Amino acid sequence: MHIAILGTGAVGPALGRAFRAAGHQVTIGTRSPEETRSRPEWADSDLPLAAYPDLRADLFVNATNGAGALAALQAVGSALDGKVVIDTSNPIDHSQGFPPVLFTSFTESLAEQLQAALPQARLVKMFNTMANQVMTNPGGLSQESTIFVAGNDDEARQTAAGLAADLGWTDVFDLGDLTAARGLELWIPLWIRLYVRLGHPMFNLKLVR
Amino acid sequence: MHIAILGTGAVGPALGRAFRAAGHQVTIGTRSPEETRSRPEWADSDLPLAAYPDLRADLFVNATNGAGALAALQAVGSALDGKVVIDTSNPIDHSQGFPPVLFTSFTESLAEQLQAALPQARLVKMFNTMANQVMTNPGGLSQESTIFVAGNDDEARQTAAGLAADLGWTDVFDLGDLTAARGLELWIPLWIRLYVRLGHPMFNLKLVR
Repeated sequence: MHIAILGTGAVGPALGRAFRAAGHQVTIGTRSPEETRSRPEWADSDLPLAAYPDLRADLFVNATNGAGALAALQAVGSALDGKVVIDTSNPIDHSQGFPPVLFTSFTESLAEQLQAALPQARLVKMFNTMANQVMTNPGGLSQESTIFVAGNDDEARQTAAGLAADLGWTDVFDLGDLTAARGLELWIPLWIRLYVRLGHPMFNLKLVR
Repeated sequence: MHIAILGTGAVGPALGRAFRAAGHQVTIGTRSPEETRSRPEWADSDLPLAAYPDLRADLFVNATNGAGALAALQAVGSALDGKVVIDTSNPIDHSQGFPPVLFTSFTESLAEQLQAALPQARLVKMFNTMANQVMTNPGGLSQESTIFVAGNDDEARQTAAGLAADLGWTDVFDLGDLTAARGLELWIPLWIRLYVRLGHPMFNLKLVR
């Protein structure tokens, strides 16, 4: 499958390399491919880059930061229509210092805001509950842990779950429609606290049931 | 240890029976012992009842609903001074229908509100992340899961962790000061969604690290 990933921070390239290792074709979307390629960490990367308006793929992954997610997806535009769009981002507001707060509310998640703005896209929330080192290497933890998927389109959730399986995920839990993204995003303050206490990002939750 | 538990709903009596089975003395606090004893589910209970102003113990547990927590603790009053007070409640607002929202904010938890109102008590947040059936029987799940403890007083957190161990908890994770209660309470929307999807409350998270 040809997967386009929006975002050139830590998450986008990590997922890009992992999807490519799993046999997928990957393009990384960015506002300016020239600017991105000029950064030291991108100089030796062989991940293909494309400007947002030129991004075409079978499936899209938003790996921008939460504050930039809507603008990035709107820059891709109608190429998202009908496509599965996996949103990995979190609505983190750093403006009030540490720890950050969320810029959403208890009654609307960022993923729901993105779906409302892009009604023809098939939004799926996945990957936002963990660090990229865990997303791309679930077997690197001491035992099996859980990844969650939420979205309004049943087939889109199944497609996203299949991609998680391609990366080695063996416990993919289907939360149903996109309102579940509220809970997945509200998990982030506890994730941040755990990160501070553990001193490393190699952790995740296992849903024991 | 003599443990007083505020609250006569599902959580209070369940914790009371479990602490008693673990060898502790238990008194259940209520606004009106006569009214509580007149309820069908309390008619045959041998758990001792006491009115809030008469409640005395070595350690207190708040098992009221979140909306009533502050009033209940204030009704106990100065008997809480210097004592460990374990807050199991969640700031759930049912007024807007299902799913409920929280009546707190991203920058203040209910536990912090209670600590601010009762500065002489040694507040510890624990037990709020799971159903009472799991609190009192962690071994009833298919594998080990995690319970979290947060509070400003190191010794109080250790005391609470010891009580969890008395109930069979083998993975008690210390989150540090009471600001961590924000994350623990923000977990509830995801807990509610998981409860709906699983159709039962016998689940919990394991912190895999």
